[in-house]
Amino acid sequence: MTITTVGVDADDTLWHNETIFRLTHARFVDLLAPYGDGEAIEARLAETEKRNLRLYGYGTKGFTLSMIETAMDLTDGAVATSVIREILAAGREMLSHPVEPLAGVDLALTTLSERYRLVLITKGDLLHQEQKLAASGLGDLFAAVEIVSEKDADTYRRVFARHGTGAEHAAMAGNSVKSDVIPALQAGAWAALIPYPLVWAHEAAAAPADHARYRELGSISELPAWLDGLSSPAG
Amino acid sequence: MTITTVGVDADDTLWHNETIFRLTHARFVDLLAPYGDGEAIEARLAETEKRNLRLYGYGTKGFTLSMIETAMDLTDGAVATSVIREILAAGREMLSHPVEPLAGVDLALTTLSERYRLVLITKGDLLHQEQKLAASGLGDLFAAVEIVSEKDADTYRRVFARHGTGAEHAAMAGNSVKSDVIPALQAGAWAALIPYPLVWAHEAAAAPADHARYRELGSISELPAWLDGLSSPAG
Repeated sequence: MTITTVGVDADDTLWHNETIFRLTHARFVDLLAPYGDGEAIEARLAETEKRNLRLYGYGTKGFTLSMIETAMDLTDGAVATSVIREILAAGREMLSHPVEPLAGVDLALTTLSERYRLVLITKGDLLHQEQKLAASGLGDLFAAVEIVSEKDADTYRRVFARHGTGAEHAAMAGNSVKSDVIPALQAGAWAALIPYPLVWAHEAAAAPADHARYRELGSISELPAWLDGLSSPAG
Repeated sequence: MTITTVGVDADDTLWHNETIFRLTHARFVDLLAPYGDGEAIEARLAETEKRNLRLYGYGTKGFTLSMIETAMDLTDGAVATSVIREILAAGREMLSHPVEPLAGVDLALTTLSERYRLVLITKGDLLHQEQKLAASGLGDLFAAVEIVSEKDADTYRRVFARHGTGAEHAAMAGNSVKSDVIPALQAGAWAALIPYPLVWAHEAAAAPADHARYRELGSISELPAWLDGLSSPAG
């Protein structure tokens, strides 16, 4: 068995994302504090986000629209327009937030890019993800970039067929059991979980701990050695 | 010279789009009529859209955010929150608007798909464009779909290299001189303009009427014959 192609998730695998969302959540709760307690506000926002996912998809623009809608709902339309302004500003700040690769990312990707075809596979706003990749300085390490609307087994089959030699010779690495691990395993690929301290509620899922092609790693720095082990005679 | 690959634009080439934006513009002007005359409101919205393009990119979600921002600006923050609700609803309606192929599209694409590698090349929100293609029933006619953040010469070079035999053996067809014609010609491809009655101000540009690889067509129904002529011995 030989691994030829390695898919890597972007948000919370290569750089911070959920942290920025959580900070914006906290700002949103502060803005709406006169209209309810923090937990109720958070719950209402999560509900709106989930309901809109089908229409807006993933990403910051849809999240900003969901914050505005939640602010209207929570206040029965009595929200101060200054709050709407603040939400628009918060959304714009998320879109222009500086991008810094997480610890170990640069070295791990450099090592991987010398041995495998590296493909970035990510959800979110098309332009924003491209801008984050450009700002990260990591773009040249990837042979291909796939920004997709959903990460399911078909997505991985399609991407690993297009850019590699099929899912059987590919591995996916990312921080989400639901998006990076389970559908990649379903497609026939190997999958490594690289945990990030925070997980968006929508992405929470139980890890398939006993799956033969699955491994939870301590950090992205362990990814090259795990992959090399798979391709070795004993793998 | 042989054409192997044909790129086709989506919005306003395969189905209505600008018409829906214009209707939403009209609704926006009505909502804000107490705060200014129609022309001033339109101008302010166009200004906001243009300023936000760099951050939001193309598509309905960014447009909705720009409408909300413009409503705040035009009213110095005194906008009724019912107006914000209406804008959110208008954005959602755009995202779930039914998709009907324009006259002649189905037959033309069916003919083209039998002779060329057909590639859909479009800007906009990733999920929304995928949903429109699915709703149109035209998806199976395309060998590939490329949803891109910008249509420049590099985009066409990359797409026609990936899905065909290079831009020299490719043609692009669409309703925008700025996005479908000029950059495709710059990349070395042929280009056909298929005019749509309305053009978004941001997309307005002068057609390169004398360019050897350019043709303005009366409708998409003329596309197969024009392309076949290019590949003929006399072409």
